[in-house]
Amino acid sequence: MGISLLTDLYELTMMQGYFFACREDEAVFDMFFRRHPFNGGYTIFAGLRPLLEALSSLRFAQEDIDYLSSLNIFHKEFLNYLSAFSFSGDVHAVEEGLPVFPYEPIVRVRGGLMEAQLIESLVLNIVNFQSLIATKASRVVGASEGRPVLEFGLRRAQGIDGALAASRASFIGGASATSNTLAGKIWGIPLSGTMAHSWVMNFPSEREAFEQYASVYRDRCVLLVDTYDTLRSGVPNAIRVFSTLKRHNPSLMAIRIDSGDLDAIARAARRMLDEAGLAEVKIYASSDLDEWMIQTLVSSGAPIDAFGVGTRMVTGWDDPALTGVYKVAAKKIEKMFHPRIKISDQSEKTTIPGVKNIIRFYHKDGAMTADLICLEEERAEIESLIRNGMPLTVYSDSDRGTVTLTDYSEARALLVPVMAHGGIIKEPEPLQAIRERCARGISSLSSSVRRISNPDIYPVYVSERLSHMKEELIHNR
Amino acid sequence: MGISLLTDLYELTMMQGYFFACREDEAVFDMFFRRHPFNGGYTIFAGLRPLLEALSSLRFAQEDIDYLSSLNIFHKEFLNYLSAFSFSGDVHAVEEGLPVFPYEPIVRVRGGLMEAQLIESLVLNIVNFQSLIATKASRVVGASEGRPVLEFGLRRAQGIDGALAASRASFIGGASATSNTLAGKIWGIPLSGTMAHSWVMNFPSEREAFEQYASVYRDRCVLLVDTYDTLRSGVPNAIRVFSTLKRHNPSLMAIRIDSGDLDAIARAARRMLDEAGLAEVKIYASSDLDEWMIQTLVSSGAPIDAFGVGTRMVTGWDDPALTGVYKVAAKKIEKMFHPRIKISDQSEKTTIPGVKNIIRFYHKDGAMTADLICLEEERAEIESLIRNGMPLTVYSDSDRGTVTLTDYSEARALLVPVMAHGGIIKEPEPLQAIRERCARGISSLSSSVRRISNPDIYPVYVSERLSHMKEELIHNR
Repeated sequence: MGISLLTDLYELTMMQGYFFACREDEAVFDMFFRRHPFNGGYTIFAGLRPLLEALSSLRFAQEDIDYLSSLNIFHKEFLNYLSAFSFSGDVHAVEEGLPVFPYEPIVRVRGGLMEAQLIESLVLNIVNFQSLIATKASRVVGASEGRPVLEFGLRRAQGIDGALAASRASFIGGASATSNTLAGKIWGIPLSGTMAHSWVMNFPSEREAFEQYASVYRDRCVLLVDTYDTLRSGVPNAIRVFSTLKRHNPSLMAIRIDSGDLDAIARAARRMLDEAGLAEVKIYASSDLDEWMIQTLVSSGAPIDAFGVGTRMVTGWDDPALTGVYKVAAKKIEKMFHPRIKISDQSEKTTIPGVKNIIRFYHKDGAMTADLICLEEERAEIESLIRNGMPLTVYSDSDRGTVTLTDYSEARALLVPVMAHGGIIKEPEPLQAIRERCARGISSLSSSVRRISNPDIYPVYVSERLSHMKEELIHNR
Repeated sequence: MGISLLTDLYELTMMQGYFFACREDEAVFDMFFRRHPFNGGYTIFAGLRPLLEALSSLRFAQEDIDYLSSLNIFHKEFLNYLSAFSFSGDVHAVEEGLPVFPYEPIVRVRGGLMEAQLIESLVLNIVNFQSLIATKASRVVGASEGRPVLEFGLRRAQGIDGALAASRASFIGGASATSNTLAGKIWGIPLSGTMAHSWVMNFPSEREAFEQYASVYRDRCVLLVDTYDTLRSGVPNAIRVFSTLKRHNPSLMAIRIDSGDLDAIARAARRMLDEAGLAEVKIYASSDLDEWMIQTLVSSGAPIDAFGVGTRMVTGWDDPALTGVYKVAAKKIEKMFHPRIKISDQSEKTTIPGVKNIIRFYHKDGAMTADLICLEEERAEIESLIRNGMPLTVYSDSDRGTVTLTDYSEARALLVPVMAHGGIIKEPEPLQAIRERCARGISSLSSSVRRISNPDIYPVYVSERLSHMKEELIHNR
């Protein structure tokens, strides 16, 4: 099934409007968001590769055209245009997996006004959701302080692609494995799986259920111990089975606890396992976990070796949508791009005009110190100042005044070309590489920005020229 | 892309375990949930048709088998079995669109233990999400008291299918239209679309933008009036354009307000439109709406004719997952199905054993009075009592005792066969028919159960025999 029609009807009606009013117009659109999800201090940019693949394959099949024709809204001339349509714009984007911040243009689309408008819903759908979940996962993984996080969300995810895209994004955000077999196949994400209560219930006794499982899975054997009574039946039965299985030198033996007071049960189970000489048996915990619960368990020292996290990671749970938007930033008039602004009574809804890039500053220890949103046309000049180690005066919205940047040793432009004339120019990269970029990005944030509650605000400045341009456009409206 | 691998790895590992331990076993599984989403009084069952279509087309392609083989977990013999696999079970389900209640078996699967286990993740993924969103939509639609609700969720939905499935479920729950063009094509859902701020920003002035739009869309013209200043610029410009457009006798003229104090702005805009002799121009409102905001607007009498609802409907927002589960209810032993129970320390997690159905009782005015969960094998007997108008003694969990049902004039078993030997026997029905069933179902609930805050609990009883069976199984464990 083609997804060219996966667009809000108004994109198509506006597109037709442009077709008749100004079909040669060109424009630049930015995708950005205004606040971090989860009251956090950063957002992980994800979804780029799936977006590029969707854009490069946008075509309207005859059945799509027939359907649109049946709506009696579209003129034949426009439908003919659509049947030959393919996306031919240029796209710049931040590299997938990097932390990004409010108002930064994370995807920049330049192309015909019509095509750039058409893709709005698709850009937002894919990037909003994957960035949301990569961010959530990175919070969960951060809270687990090195213990693996296994993503188990398929059964509660929001639809089929809600599950698949969430598995992909969770892995980028730092999850170690997924239970979703199809996600494993598509992206090479390591798979993880244990057993369900139904397995245990299927045999005459819990012990037989464990024995049967261990006879088939001698090398990696994770037993779910809470079907009946965790400490009186589950753990003792697991101990019996593992004591025998041990002779086969399995690469993994673990119990999984899926209910009750995880902290107390894990401690008691750990003692029982250790006393039985099974110090090598790991303890997995699951049961409505999120970053807050994991932080509590980790800080109290619960002897849990890995966390299975589902619903509360793959749906975003306490903040189930990143509210990214896609707005006109510039319009081509007589061969030149002119900045465009959307002004709102709510000043935080006013857009930053112009064709922009983001420059990220790093301290010599690798820590990110600040981002600067600037005009693409002034970037060379700014980069030359940076290369010469000159102080840079920039505008700070929160200070309502200028700030001078001196404490940096390196700077890098974040928006890079990923698509030219509708063709993908960004080389595909393994998901593992994106995951590593994400981990590096998060570790270069200060711990005060990274923390899950009351984070510090990472500084994002705008260049003085951009700040003046914005004021002028507001003034001259 | 096939979705046979859209399953948790553990379903496949358990399946292989059963393959070697007990491949001829048969079982009955129930899908049910334990609490309504949104602290509501009912849940709308949705997702059945997509589930049946997925089940009937489950096949493992060679590339799926190759992938599984590469994991080094699966034996050749089992993989050979999988490559010839198709689902051959029987499925009973509630009719799509009906209200359902905690612990009721809403989908009942009978088949080989292996195949019934395999499909767990798929059943839960599809039904959990669509039921969640149909329920949310019905709450939003209920709050709007007859004003159309337009679903605009694509850009913030959880992935591509998160959007498509949400459009389908929202329509079932009572939304009048969607902005998602592909959802319109697939299911024939009416489409709705207006314009974005980018349209307005694209022209030298708001007035020109409106004029251009009206010149292309003379018959249905909805103008977005809040790009610059709603009351000083947007509404006056819309009035000028509509005053001219009126001569063409359009079928719809409306303004859309997407920000600010919707109540105050709608009242002021209504006055301005009326004073300009444009009483026929409708007012649409959008902007982070949900059932609570709509209830407030409606009860205060804001002159809004239709609501555009996006993020907070299609993600579930305040409760983004229905936590349905899928549990063994019975196991075939020597040609007879024997009940199975999962007992938990948390009594609300203990399952209801046996092969069951739901009988729904109606008052003579059509109102639903109670549901009864009973064993399939006692159903004929109960139905005969009902036909003869005899009082029925049933067990009430909340009263911890028996209750006698007398006040009913009709009763109907809710679980009906929808799939036999892996083939769909339920006739496909237009989505509109499911939507109407949903509307009838909701209207047959008392208003105290239907209300969005602090609803009354709709009574769901279990038969005395089932109640005794459960006690016995707990006792004899």
